[in-house]
Amino acid sequence: MQLTHLDEKNHPTMVDVSQKEQTTREAVASGVIRVSSEAYKAVKENSAKKGPVLQTAVIASIMGAKETSRLIPMCHPLLLSSIKTDIEELEESCAFKLWVKVKLNGQTGVEMEAMMGVSVGLLTIYDMLKAIDKGMVIENIQLESKMGGKNGDFRR
Amino acid sequence: MQLTHLDEKNHPTMVDVSQKEQTTREAVASGVIRVSSEAYKAVKENSAKKGPVLQTAVIASIMGAKETSRLIPMCHPLLLSSIKTDIEELEESCAFKLWVKVKLNGQTGVEMEAMMGVSVGLLTIYDMLKAIDKGMVIENIQLESKMGGKNGDFRR
Amino acid sequence: MQLTHLDEKNHPTMVDVSQKEQTTREAVASGVIRVSSEAYKAVKENSAKKGPVLQTAVIASIMGAKETSRLIPMCHPLLLSSIKTDIEELEESCAFKLWVKVKLNGQTGVEMEAMMGVSVGLLTIYDMLKAIDKGMVIENIQLESKMGGKNGDFRR
Amino acid sequence: MQLTHLDEKNHPTMVDVSQKEQTTREAVASGVIRVSSEAYKAVKENSAKKGPVLQTAVIASIMGAKETSRLIPMCHPLLLSSIKTDIEELEESCAFKLWVKVKLNGQTGVEMEAMMGVSVGLLTIYDMLKAIDKGMVIENIQLESKMGGKNGDFRR
Amino acid sequence: MQLTHLDEKNHPTMVDVSQKEQTTREAVASGVIRVSSEAYKAVKENSAKKGPVLQTAVIASIMGAKETSRLIPMCHPLLLSSIKTDIEELEESCAFKLWVKVKLNGQTGVEMEAMMGVSVGLLTIYDMLKAIDKGMVIENIQLESKMGGKNGDFRR
Amino acid sequence: MQLTHLDEKNHPTMVDVSQKEQTTREAVASGVIRVSSEAYKAVKENSAKKGPVLQTAVIASIMGAKETSRLIPMCHPLLLSSIKTDIEELEESCAFKLWVKVKLNGQTGVEMEAMMGVSVGLLTIYDMLKAIDKGMVIENIQLESKMGGKNGDFRR
Repeated sequence: MQLTHLDEKNHPTMVDVSQKEQTTREAVASGVIRVSSEAYKAVKENSAKKGPVLQTAVIASIMGAKETSRLIPMCHPLLLSSIKTDIEELEESCAFKLWVKVKLNGQTGVEMEAMMGVSVGLLTIYDMLKAIDKGMVIENIQLESKMGGKNGDFRR
Repeated sequence: MQLTHLDEKNHPTMVDVSQKEQTTREAVASGVIRVSSEAYKAVKENSAKKGPVLQTAVIASIMGAKETSRLIPMCHPLLLSSIKTDIEELEESCAFKLWVKVKLNGQTGVEMEAMMGVSVGLLTIYDMLKAIDKGMVIENIQLESKMGGKNGDFRR
Repeated sequence: MQLTHLDEKNHPTMVDVSQKEQTTREAVASGVIRVSSEAYKAVKENSAKKGPVLQTAVIASIMGAKETSRLIPMCHPLLLSSIKTDIEELEESCAFKLWVKVKLNGQTGVEMEAMMGVSVGLLTIYDMLKAIDKGMVIENIQLESKMGGKNGDFRR
Repeated sequence: MQLTHLDEKNHPTMVDVSQKEQTTREAVASGVIRVSSEAYKAVKENSAKKGPVLQTAVIASIMGAKETSRLIPMCHPLLLSSIKTDIEELEESCAFKLWVKVKLNGQTGVEMEAMMGVSVGLLTIYDMLKAIDKGMVIENIQLESKMGGKNGDFRR
Repeated sequence: MQLTHLDEKNHPTMVDVSQKEQTTREAVASGVIRVSSEAYKAVKENSAKKGPVLQTAVIASIMGAKETSRLIPMCHPLLLSSIKTDIEELEESCAFKLWVKVKLNGQTGVEMEAMMGVSVGLLTIYDMLKAIDKGMVIENIQLESKMGGKNGDFRR
Repeated sequence: MQLTHLDEKNHPTMVDVSQKEQTTREAVASGVIRVSSEAYKAVKENSAKKGPVLQTAVIASIMGAKETSRLIPMCHPLLLSSIKTDIEELEESCAFKLWVKVKLNGQTGVEMEAMMGVSVGLLTIYDMLKAIDKGMVIENIQLESKMGGKNGDFRR
């Protein structure tokens, strides 16, 4: 088993993708933040008016996805062609589930961009609610699906 | 209940901390990544030599914590005075638990910096292992403790 | 007349503020974007629901203000303690006026941060409406007031 | 009328350009800063020697244009192939007019990059002259022309 | 002789590469840091265990190379497809030589990215050893070779 | 000998400076770029007019110094209070020597900021001259002096 980011001297390396095919690639990731019922209500009542907690999270999520190659040391800079988000309100469990879908025409996948978008979006929800509840937990950040590239598709 | 980041017109706002006391503040956050046994082994065998997966994660974690105010829209820029990390190897569950502790002498807390450090570190582990296992899940990113500031300490 | 950013060899310089007093400083800037009636209506009808054009602008404005020292070559990095925005809807002239107020306890003023916040916020409105109207004009970006610091206050 | 940056739940989105044609695109924007006669003279006398106010503005303008996708939330990262600037000295009105032309071979336009370049350049002039004149006004930031892309050309 | 970055008014400009051919380009740069024998030993004894000084330098080098277009004013943003490093331990002269190789399929060369990677990597070694030795010297940062592009190859 | 950036598990760490005294600190670094006589002449003839190669380098140097904590993994974010540069023209050896002096009131030294400023400035000269000469060498980046802090002053 060879870790693809490690060269023969065991130094990290940004792997060579120059020979990989330029194809349409897509990745979807998701994650959840569980909050107190008080915090959940605060978001809901607010979003009944103008919803800025979730709006702010969506914007942070998109901007965060664009920063991936600057934050994850071995990620390639990429020309993302689309970033879309969705937020599910899981009322019974007082949670929000954030989905991020990223598209690219390029030589490497966009899993990390989708995962980063989810992470930054959920952290933003945490930030905007932490005056009410510091015990919130971010859970299940995971890749949902991946299309394109020679290694085949992935679906959880 | 007033969400502290929302002003009276319901626009997000970077709240005024200018009257808050300058004190020593500290926050500890943690999070876990569950990986396949194959991926776990790859890290371990590697770290038996030079361990660059976890080293890279630690470095990304520290650098990511420093980027918090640029990624989380309403966070204040802060002069962090210390960032430390620890990684627990949870062999039985094939998981790594990353701890990040951040310190500051300043006017607002460093919870977000610790949470961001954990997130970026775990995403880096994901990135460096995703050639082996795309199904890894990031879990339980949470604040462990917080000290300093007028709202009192927090301990999970 | 000596331009304060130029040293004796006429090279730009980041002027020395180390001897300046640490005081509370505040700056307010404003600016206007004039749009077509069609674009104006699009924002209004939308903001009657969830208003994301202006919400996005407000968030971009705050995040942009935090980037000032990285964009304006001779600006000092600053620990901003508050950023607030307001948007006036100038219905008769089909325009939006964005106000940004920035606060700091520090050794130099925050005029540039307020001006940058206004600029990035207005550009964001332009971006989100440009599919409807490319002829929009950004106008009258200006300092409204400034408080604190040894040179005295400024009020337009 | 559908705002192209808003998805069906009214969340902002980075629109999908993956099906758009890869063409040569160009955008020119301009803007003006009106300054006091004293400030104008300071620039001129200086630029008679080495001109660093305007040189600094030009450099900031080019660097700022490259930051567009990080500052404007829904902008795509782009591989700009050229950025050129020009400064007109409007002696009668004590003003400087900054032009920025941006080129790209890509799938979406570069209007925002040209507008951002103008804004950051003018703000830099403000910064370097604000010790002399705090009342300067930035005006008429606008798109002058746009070429390429399926929506046709634009000329003011 | 015309400096390619200067336009006719002698303002810097990001030169137009839109007509240049899209080819595979590669650049290799190197540089050296000379340290005290005490500092050299500290790295070696450490790298006998887990080597984090050099690991940290390698990671910083790769991340720094990705920042080139944000740091060097007239550099184009580029989609780097590979970044590899190597560190030679020059035991007799108590020095480390860092090599960085960058690859791109694109319209302009990657010399600056390789040079920037070397610089940031060596500065990181300096940072991590400066508690032991402040007199270390960084030397001979230079282009080793360059391939691709119409101007032909370069080999030192 | 304990490397101060390494914790007990040999992970890098951003060392705790929260107990260090807040003092005035200053660091001066320098470095040299040796160029061909043709390149040297190009700069000189140009700087006889408006000198933009060296002006661009000076601006890049100052902006680069401000980026230090984002590029060097274990560096603390700092509120630099002054950055000044000087360029010596070493006509006999066809070289330019860049000096950068950084000041801070804070808890840790600014050596890295001065060294980074020198590096980015010299790389900018390389970039702007590389169409004429690819063989230029950057040499002798070193700390010249350091004042403030409990470890005493340093002078080369």
